[in-house]
Amino acid sequence: MAGAPDDASAAVELEQYLRTRIPLTGAMQVRVREACRARVVLAAPLAPNINHQRTAFGGSVAALATLAAWSLLRVRLRGDGRAANVVIRRSTIDYAAAVTGELMAICEFSDEDRWSEAIARLRARGRARLEVESRLEEPAGTAARFHGVFVLLDAGADH
Amino acid sequence: MAGAPDDASAAVELEQYLRTRIPLTGAMQVRVREACRARVVLAAPLAPNINHQRTAFGGSVAALATLAAWSLLRVRLRGDGRAANVVIRRSTIDYAAAVTGELMAICEFSDEDRWSEAIARLRARGRARLEVESRLEEPAGTAARFHGVFVLLDAGADH
Repeated sequence: MAGAPDDASAAVELEQYLRTRIPLTGAMQVRVREACRARVVLAAPLAPNINHQRTAFGGSVAALATLAAWSLLRVRLRGDGRAANVVIRRSTIDYAAAVTGELMAICEFSDEDRWSEAIARLRARGRARLEVESRLEEPAGTAARFHGVFVLLDAGADH
Repeated sequence: MAGAPDDASAAVELEQYLRTRIPLTGAMQVRVREACRARVVLAAPLAPNINHQRTAFGGSVAALATLAAWSLLRVRLRGDGRAANVVIRRSTIDYAAAVTGELMAICEFSDEDRWSEAIARLRARGRARLEVESRLEEPAGTAARFHGVFVLLDAGADH
């Protein structure tokens, strides 16, 4: 199980990966605050993600929430030493309140039984469906709730 | 009813508005291809919106689909001379296939009865809920379907 130093290096690795492979995360100025099996926290300043009403652009909210959930799955797969791709199939976002400052997306996942079942399906069939939630947090409370359906695809599988 | 020249100037105005007020649309290189009451078409090249698998980043797909729907409502409100804000409340996206080239989001709306009812509610109550759909089109077919719940808020209303 990863300790604090590994979590820090996982966060650095994830941020570099996002910035290199998904250039829009650079334009959004996405930072990885935490990246471990149980929790990923991504942040982005308001300025590059602002809209016409001086609050966070809904597209940036959607992108950051999606990235947080996707990143948590990637961190877990890497932790398990599994080469699998993570693809989004469906997402729903409830926008409860405008984000008026820094954007912060949190994805938490601690259901190890559900994870083990997904990994077993991935092994057996080369693919597994998994639902993950994330949220945008403001000092005043939750501004948006994301629910995503992802598919894990074995990188070597025939799908 | 707007003719072709007005539609062209509406497209130019919308693109300038997006680029000025929502800076991420500049990073995404969003272009307004069409902007009239019945249809908004937005496009963006793959390069600034690419992901680690060399297809379109899900966050860019979500952002462009959201913008297309939001833009159609803005075009209609401006056409009616109404000063109202358009706020997203809920969105669902089904990702059917990867986008492998230019991103193109299309929002079509032709239900004038539903529009008139929304405008009547906006007049009477200062706010009105409206559901709008958009889609990401690829040469091979529809790559993603967006369903959004928006709220129109009278700019001068007490809400």
